[in-house]
Amino acid sequence: MIGIINGPNLNLLGRRQPEIYGTDTLEDINNWLLDYVSAYGNEAGGGSLGSEGLIFVQSNSEGELVGAIQEMGFDPAVKGIVINPGAYAHYSLAIRDAIASVPVPVVEVHLSNIHAREEFRHTSVTAGACRGMICGLGKMGYALAVESLLL
Amino acid sequence: MIGIINGPNLNLLGRRQPEIYGTDTLEDINNWLLDYVSAYGNEAGGGSLGSEGLIFVQSNSEGELVGAIQEMGFDPAVKGIVINPGAYAHYSLAIRDAIASVPVPVVEVHLSNIHAREEFRHTSVTAGACRGMICGLGKMGYALAVESLLL
Amino acid sequence: MIGIINGPNLNLLGRRQPEIYGTDTLEDINNWLLDYVSAYGNEAGGGSLGSEGLIFVQSNSEGELVGAIQEMGFDPAVKGIVINPGAYAHYSLAIRDAIASVPVPVVEVHLSNIHAREEFRHTSVTAGACRGMICGLGKMGYALAVESLLL
Amino acid sequence: MIGIINGPNLNLLGRRQPEIYGTDTLEDINNWLLDYVSAYGNEAGGGSLGSEGLIFVQSNSEGELVGAIQEMGFDPAVKGIVINPGAYAHYSLAIRDAIASVPVPVVEVHLSNIHAREEFRHTSVTAGACRGMICGLGKMGYALAVESLLL
Amino acid sequence: MIGIINGPNLNLLGRRQPEIYGTDTLEDINNWLLDYVSAYGNEAGGGSLGSEGLIFVQSNSEGELVGAIQEMGFDPAVKGIVINPGAYAHYSLAIRDAIASVPVPVVEVHLSNIHAREEFRHTSVTAGACRGMICGLGKMGYALAVESLLL
Amino acid sequence: MIGIINGPNLNLLGRRQPEIYGTDTLEDINNWLLDYVSAYGNEAGGGSLGSEGLIFVQSNSEGELVGAIQEMGFDPAVKGIVINPGAYAHYSLAIRDAIASVPVPVVEVHLSNIHAREEFRHTSVTAGACRGMICGLGKMGYALAVESLLL
Amino acid sequence: MIGIINGPNLNLLGRRQPEIYGTDTLEDINNWLLDYVSAYGNEAGGGSLGSEGLIFVQSNSEGELVGAIQEMGFDPAVKGIVINPGAYAHYSLAIRDAIASVPVPVVEVHLSNIHAREEFRHTSVTAGACRGMICGLGKMGYALAVESLLL
Amino acid sequence: MIGIINGPNLNLLGRRQPEIYGTDTLEDINNWLLDYVSAYGNEAGGGSLGSEGLIFVQSNSEGELVGAIQEMGFDPAVKGIVINPGAYAHYSLAIRDAIASVPVPVVEVHLSNIHAREEFRHTSVTAGACRGMICGLGKMGYALAVESLLL
Amino acid sequence: MIGIINGPNLNLLGRRQPEIYGTDTLEDINNWLLDYVSAYGNEAGGGSLGSEGLIFVQSNSEGELVGAIQEMGFDPAVKGIVINPGAYAHYSLAIRDAIASVPVPVVEVHLSNIHAREEFRHTSVTAGACRGMICGLGKMGYALAVESLLL
Amino acid sequence: MIGIINGPNLNLLGRRQPEIYGTDTLEDINNWLLDYVSAYGNEAGGGSLGSEGLIFVQSNSEGELVGAIQEMGFDPAVKGIVINPGAYAHYSLAIRDAIASVPVPVVEVHLSNIHAREEFRHTSVTAGACRGMICGLGKMGYALAVESLLL
Amino acid sequence: MIGIINGPNLNLLGRRQPEIYGTDTLEDINNWLLDYVSAYGNEAGGGSLGSEGLIFVQSNSEGELVGAIQEMGFDPAVKGIVINPGAYAHYSLAIRDAIASVPVPVVEVHLSNIHAREEFRHTSVTAGACRGMICGLGKMGYALAVESLLL
Amino acid sequence: MIGIINGPNLNLLGRRQPEIYGTDTLEDINNWLLDYVSAYGNEAGGGSLGSEGLIFVQSNSEGELVGAIQEMGFDPAVKGIVINPGAYAHYSLAIRDAIASVPVPVVEVHLSNIHAREEFRHTSVTAGACRGMICGLGKMGYALAVESLLL
Repeated sequence: MIGIINGPNLNLLGRRQPEIYGTDTLEDINNWLLDYVSAYGNEAGGGSLGSEGLIFVQSNSEGELVGAIQEMGFDPAVKGIVINPGAYAHYSLAIRDAIASVPVPVVEVHLSNIHAREEFRHTSVTAGACRGMICGLGKMGYALAVESLLL
Repeated sequence: MIGIINGPNLNLLGRRQPEIYGTDTLEDINNWLLDYVSAYGNEAGGGSLGSEGLIFVQSNSEGELVGAIQEMGFDPAVKGIVINPGAYAHYSLAIRDAIASVPVPVVEVHLSNIHAREEFRHTSVTAGACRGMICGLGKMGYALAVESLLL
Repeated sequence: MIGIINGPNLNLLGRRQPEIYGTDTLEDINNWLLDYVSAYGNEAGGGSLGSEGLIFVQSNSEGELVGAIQEMGFDPAVKGIVINPGAYAHYSLAIRDAIASVPVPVVEVHLSNIHAREEFRHTSVTAGACRGMICGLGKMGYALAVESLLL
Repeated sequence: MIGIINGPNLNLLGRRQPEIYGTDTLEDINNWLLDYVSAYGNEAGGGSLGSEGLIFVQSNSEGELVGAIQEMGFDPAVKGIVINPGAYAHYSLAIRDAIASVPVPVVEVHLSNIHAREEFRHTSVTAGACRGMICGLGKMGYALAVESLLL
Repeated sequence: MIGIINGPNLNLLGRRQPEIYGTDTLEDINNWLLDYVSAYGNEAGGGSLGSEGLIFVQSNSEGELVGAIQEMGFDPAVKGIVINPGAYAHYSLAIRDAIASVPVPVVEVHLSNIHAREEFRHTSVTAGACRGMICGLGKMGYALAVESLLL
Repeated sequence: MIGIINGPNLNLLGRRQPEIYGTDTLEDINNWLLDYVSAYGNEAGGGSLGSEGLIFVQSNSEGELVGAIQEMGFDPAVKGIVINPGAYAHYSLAIRDAIASVPVPVVEVHLSNIHAREEFRHTSVTAGACRGMICGLGKMGYALAVESLLL
Repeated sequence: MIGIINGPNLNLLGRRQPEIYGTDTLEDINNWLLDYVSAYGNEAGGGSLGSEGLIFVQSNSEGELVGAIQEMGFDPAVKGIVINPGAYAHYSLAIRDAIASVPVPVVEVHLSNIHAREEFRHTSVTAGACRGMICGLGKMGYALAVESLLL
Repeated sequence: MIGIINGPNLNLLGRRQPEIYGTDTLEDINNWLLDYVSAYGNEAGGGSLGSEGLIFVQSNSEGELVGAIQEMGFDPAVKGIVINPGAYAHYSLAIRDAIASVPVPVVEVHLSNIHAREEFRHTSVTAGACRGMICGLGKMGYALAVESLLL
Repeated sequence: MIGIINGPNLNLLGRRQPEIYGTDTLEDINNWLLDYVSAYGNEAGGGSLGSEGLIFVQSNSEGELVGAIQEMGFDPAVKGIVINPGAYAHYSLAIRDAIASVPVPVVEVHLSNIHAREEFRHTSVTAGACRGMICGLGKMGYALAVESLLL
Repeated sequence: MIGIINGPNLNLLGRRQPEIYGTDTLEDINNWLLDYVSAYGNEAGGGSLGSEGLIFVQSNSEGELVGAIQEMGFDPAVKGIVINPGAYAHYSLAIRDAIASVPVPVVEVHLSNIHAREEFRHTSVTAGACRGMICGLGKMGYALAVESLLL
Repeated sequence: MIGIINGPNLNLLGRRQPEIYGTDTLEDINNWLLDYVSAYGNEAGGGSLGSEGLIFVQSNSEGELVGAIQEMGFDPAVKGIVINPGAYAHYSLAIRDAIASVPVPVVEVHLSNIHAREEFRHTSVTAGACRGMICGLGKMGYALAVESLLL
Repeated sequence: MIGIINGPNLNLLGRRQPEIYGTDTLEDINNWLLDYVSAYGNEAGGGSLGSEGLIFVQSNSEGELVGAIQEMGFDPAVKGIVINPGAYAHYSLAIRDAIASVPVPVVEVHLSNIHAREEFRHTSVTAGACRGMICGLGKMGYALAVESLLL
């Protein structure tokens, strides 16, 4: 099981600045991801993760995101976490600490290329506590992050 | 065809700080990548890219890397470029300009998580001109970057 | 309808540092604002906004503030939002993103003059996503912000 | 009587970057403001300020602006000053000192939202000596500033 | 009565990076603190605070921490607050404002020595609004902070 | 017609630090420039600009320089402006705004090489609003700037 | 035995800015501390440290403070050191190195809350080499620091 | 002859923030200075400077101050200049350049101690081009500066 | 003879971001420059430099650019060098040192106005070692730089 | 009685960088100062300070300087202190605290103009605790500082 | 065998700024170094390194320097490397990484004292990956570095 | 005669962090250095410096170090000074000034590589006044520094 955690304003996907974030809703992306992962498991011989193997959390609240990381991160059934911390990536040391505190690996994902936007998005304080980070590849980023956790 | 460009000191892979970069040589990674992409093309229905579809360049020279990006980037047979600029990521505005100058998409890859290392590695000036960036996922990063270019 | 959103510690108004914030409670201000707007609509010929036309939210939670902005900001009955983000103005990129994501205009208000207080209050990261900002004019700031949204 | 002081390049309004500053000339705005204030005084019961009650100064010169603030600021007939210092807001400590030196309250106004433009416009050194600041609300900002001084 | 407020990730104590934070759980620490304070009250003649005199709150949410400070801080039965804001110490101006808003004294505690860890932990924005701060002394820090509030 | 605007202390040329600025007075330079331009127009087939085609302004006052830029910049007879803002180049946002506000192209000139002097002269805030900048080439800089505006 | 080291200007206690530092002289504080520790040892069962167990040093000289730390820090009879480095806390890397060089634990104390005073007092370079730090709790801070070393 | 140049807002002396600047008007100070210098010349054997030997300029305009420095600075009858640049001291590179351009020595004076006020007053860009600087000694500063120029 | 040295990515001219750099290829510019200089020499009486008098080097390699500067810079037949260091202007201290090491004068040229682009292009470390710099004037910049070297 | 305190390396005067500090030894300056002050007292009617009224201390040690300030600063016979802290002016917060702790006024003096030398000499942390500062006027600075304390 | 690597512009020694770098050519220095080392080996009993034991590389190219470090650094016959990275010392992270990647010790040398020159030469990013650094001692620095590698 | 000056905490060598500084005591190093220099003088033909030719000073006091530099630096029998300023290297401008004030050359030595340790050790303010600096080569650094002074 892989946890998929989305942070603030990602519940607005499809309605929010589509020129940056595209027209898919978060539900669209989650469903696409289930399909992708399902196909991946069957065909590419990746780790056996059925479609039931993804659990989704979205919250605008820093505290709830900390809680979700803690809960999934100590759940023996969870192999890893994919997190898109949204804007919290740039200042939430509380989320960074939560990631650093859990034993499962965490991969950070951003839909847009944070290095090509405003200066204040060029660094991520949460990424420093993750295994790695993927940005700028749209929804594909989630799929690639899941793959990386299954190898 | 996808170009795989590796920057300075990546020719040392396998011999250089294996606790950070692993024990695979660059040739090992390139061969693994050919296999991976070949399998991916056959099974997952990704873009049709035969194993001959990867071209590899490694150089320690900033100028040669600029040249490689230019050459591949205007080659109509090339669909995209995966580049690991190594340490140049943190200061080479010349490479940034080269990436910004070519019409094909470029994805930046780092084997290690640059956000978890020395302060001066936390930002990438070249990533701002790329489509996206993947770091911290080891050799898998190259494979994921190739996939993202084939969708 | 205009949304009036107040952030952290504004529920303490009247009890908190009255030499800075005055002795009115938040309820006092809200009632005064209803009267003011009601008079304004009748007399000055501003946009027709009855006293029922103001909706009030106060929260100490960044996530709830993001949620309130989202909810009001996509509500077709809402013409605009007046927000006093309190201290979040100085670091909450999540609130900034929420403001940038909604189609209605948002005006930021601060009771005190943020430029005349501690250095860390001299900039507002949320104001950059708003239509404008008013500070230092006490409760009058809310009234003026509402007026500006009705013209 | 309220003084309305406009700083450098505001004499160009209507001709200067209309996508930022609109098509009204400064004279248009001043006349609109006289009407607005006149109506406000009659209807809303604000402080009794006849239309003759506004005095207008515009100058491109920092020294003349300092002089205007001094002259109005010690004039017993003047209840307050509304100032748009233009670009001087970002570096003129001389204007800041002049504002701090006079006994009447001063409210700073900017037509555009300074927080949403170039980095160097995100702070105002003059605002720290004012009672408050309004930005981003176009010509309405002048009217709201006058109102705030009449309460 | 003394309030003991613990911030984000402190609910993980005992499971989280024990080389930094030790193996006691938060419940262990709270019980130890009850015993310590009970003994202290009996023996050292400190202020009369029965073991029922400690109230404990833990939350990962910035907003809930603001709320807890407000509630305890205006409760006439509360003599003081001991707070470990965790990572929020380094950026939560909302918590700083809450502390500054309440009439009871607040003492900040950190289990580890924040000056001996990453650069971004070397300053505390919340401590500036407290009476004082104790760090690096492990669970003893809570006991010492309680003592200082009872003298 | 091309406007030649010189800023503070350039009226001292010939008397001021000749080891940096040379021994020509401003009048010498202006006369030389008239000759140069006259020759250039006749021989090199550049834009037809008679020697009467240069108008000269020098002022030590920031406000007067703003005024001169405005006046020339909206004068239909003026094809372009050459400005040496002197020390104002390094901080006058008012002059920058004036340059950005006028429709004619402006080229900035400095007699000395600002990059080879004190640190505070290494950047020019006014140059960002110009078409280009020439520095370090002495009086030749004015001539080259005029040429560039005539092509 | 516990060493109590006081740095520059602490010999002025009682005469120096009593609104910040109180009216106790350093001798008063030392005597109070002897009493406190004596009582603590008898009653609270802390480590057995008779009143003779405190040794006091005060110096305005950085070099003498380095010397005192060295001498006490390698003395087998000394269990720990409590140091109030005064203003040296903010820049004395020599004292930091001395603390880092000795095998006994050191706890830093400040009478006032350094985070609530001038910006240059918000960080302590010496605290990074200590076990922990206590500030803002007045003379109680010394007592608490001694306690923490006896557990 | 010694030139006495006063910058922006110094014409307000006596009326402006008397707790900082005292109750003397600028005219009072100038007259006192004439007396002082007159006495000094007679008694202390300083350079022979009759009371007619002081010439006074005050301006709020940066450009006029530049002009005054130039005029006095190249006047063979002027032995030196005493300048209080007011707030321009902190950013006017144009005034700095004027001072650096003239052959007579210039001494900078500030009535208040600029190092004990706001951070932005702690440095003087104009002082670097002067012979020296005196601050914090009230009107005595002018007298001392004149003396220093006469030795 | 004048050396014309072009740095990284300038070989892409005509194909690279034509909205910034125009549609001329580098060869077009070089030919135009030969014509321009040839005409200039014949007509304007500038230094006698036949069209064979320009030598062109382009390289993407920092080291080769250093080499070209050295070779030309000590060649007695070379009167001066015009260099467009491209992105190297912003960080190549090696090129700066090369320029500072050669006896012939060097003038830096940029096609675009570096002060009007990204923040990191606002300074040039190489320009500090040159005689002067021209930017923002397109290919005309090369011609003007050559002229300035012939006077 | 006025205390004259000189800091590190001032005992080298006359032998140390005479192009900056002149050829007078410290003893020469002290004697000159005694004469000057003696003359001043007799003739100019300043405060009655006989030549025995100056006491001199020089030390290279920060701690001894702190001690000297304390001793003189609480001595009822001392009317004021003139201090040249030498290089300590730029970083000794311990000396700053000593100055702030004593009831007598202190005036800081520097022989050279600190604003015209290396960047790190442009600010003085000790001056912020003094009544004022004089720099760049050579030995005359001491005399002027004494005068200012006698008025 | 010891490798001696010289970076950009060091091939100009003897011709380049002799007031800083002296009049020896690089060949002179290399020959002197061979003699020195030869003598040292014979007489001082240092490690047995015949004169054939030095291998010399000079390049202006960052990439070639990276290559030289790699080649020598993995050559079992090489005991250590002495490198003068020239200006690359201040920004070449690629060279830093190469040094960090090889098993032999590397000592950095600079002919001039980098701490006494321009600000941008005060730090070395490459030195952090070396065993040590020697600067300011002229050609003697190479000899001392070789000695240190032979002990 | 060569002076060997060691700064704060170097008297602890052998007992202090031996993993960084080794197990030799300062006395061991001094004796080794006497032997080394003695051998060097005899064999390598270096300057004739007998073993009695080294004089050693160690102090933890900044003021005493300033004094030692002064005393040795003006002693005609002293050819040069080798100084290890310890942590003072990073902030003691007083020591820097002392070094700059004496006529004999001074070479700075650090046992460890300051560029490979904490950020605050990466620069040396004292080195800027020395002839050169050696770091990271352990006790060999002292010997090499002495050699460099004898050539």
